[in-house]
Amino acid sequence: MKNIFKISASPVTLRRLAEYFCKLIQLQKENTEQISSKQLAEMMDTNSSQLRQDFHHFGGFGKPGHPYSVQNLTEELKGIFNVDENVNILLGGATGIAKALINNATLSILNFNIKGIVDTDKALIGTEFEGYKIISTRALKRLIEEENIKIGVICKPNPAPMLDIFTRAGIKGIWNLSPVYIQPPKGITIQHENLAAGLLTLNYSMNLD
Amino acid sequence: MKNIFKISASPVTLRRLAEYFCKLIQLQKENTEQISSKQLAEMMDTNSSQLRQDFHHFGGFGKPGHPYSVQNLTEELKGIFNVDENVNILLGGATGIAKALINNATLSILNFNIKGIVDTDKALIGTEFEGYKIISTRALKRLIEEENIKIGVICKPNPAPMLDIFTRAGIKGIWNLSPVYIQPPKGITIQHENLAAGLLTLNYSMNLD
Repeated sequence: MKNIFKISASPVTLRRLAEYFCKLIQLQKENTEQISSKQLAEMMDTNSSQLRQDFHHFGGFGKPGHPYSVQNLTEELKGIFNVDENVNILLGGATGIAKALINNATLSILNFNIKGIVDTDKALIGTEFEGYKIISTRALKRLIEEENIKIGVICKPNPAPMLDIFTRAGIKGIWNLSPVYIQPPKGITIQHENLAAGLLTLNYSMNLD
Repeated sequence: MKNIFKISASPVTLRRLAEYFCKLIQLQKENTEQISSKQLAEMMDTNSSQLRQDFHHFGGFGKPGHPYSVQNLTEELKGIFNVDENVNILLGGATGIAKALINNATLSILNFNIKGIVDTDKALIGTEFEGYKIISTRALKRLIEEENIKIGVICKPNPAPMLDIFTRAGIKGIWNLSPVYIQPPKGITIQHENLAAGLLTLNYSMNLD
């Protein structure tokens, strides 16, 4: 059944669901047991009818008029987002953004496991970075197979060389945290996380009145 | 007239427009002079009717059947997003994500000027970080007034202390790059940039088939 719900969701609905999920993870950490759609919607700067509609795309959760169980809801969402088991990821570039991801507690709660860091800078190979030993691009293919790595994260300002390295080594999913858009090669899924677009949106909203 | 277009755009349309804008900045850097709605839509993983509809919210640009001038379009978008003049911002926390923002070339092309870094860690005050001297929270109010700082960026994993520091010092716009959601206090606009939600979206998309 799961796939039927999946196909019907637009990228926008999907992103909102991911945002609710992250908020629920936070509530769970704070030991919140129950939450109403109205409360959750207010926390997420939306309204409860939008929230219920978003959940409906994925088969709905809970009963009308009853608050959600935070634990049940996060468990459901773990299944939908395929993070009920570990998802192994690899960082490309020993940069500031790589450091931020290593220290992002939400990622590990969501079962995203950082399995290593690769860099193209030969001087960095073998040195330590935030508890990881930086590996060379040559050692990459073996690591990907041994550790069953699913997603490569581009942490360098220029994404093209790392994209090439990841796809040659057999990675099918790319999370692009560079400011530069890249076209996905055939058979590769790319998610571009464009920080500048967020700052533009904020600046626009502040000038509305 | 501008404000009429502004009010009609949903947050989702707005975010898409910001994404087109960033792509156009990139095209301009690569000396692309003209682009059709079809080409731009393909680059952005959308279709040209969606793209034209998004532009239409903001009064439309260009003539039907003619390609857009990349330069004219970026100039229009600069006006809409209020970045035709410098927007001064301040980083809160000398962290990996702060380093990534300082090295993000798109931000400076978009006229976002990083005017300083503040940190709560006393041992860091006065030390250098990526070309900036880290300032104390005490020196903040004067800097904000002197440099006309509009936006504070939360670059620490725990956003609450920095939110408090920024709002006490008179900042009205907060860009939250921590993984933790925060409720905006009255009169404050917050944009939350949740990296984990992007990775969840990617992982979901990869498991669709």
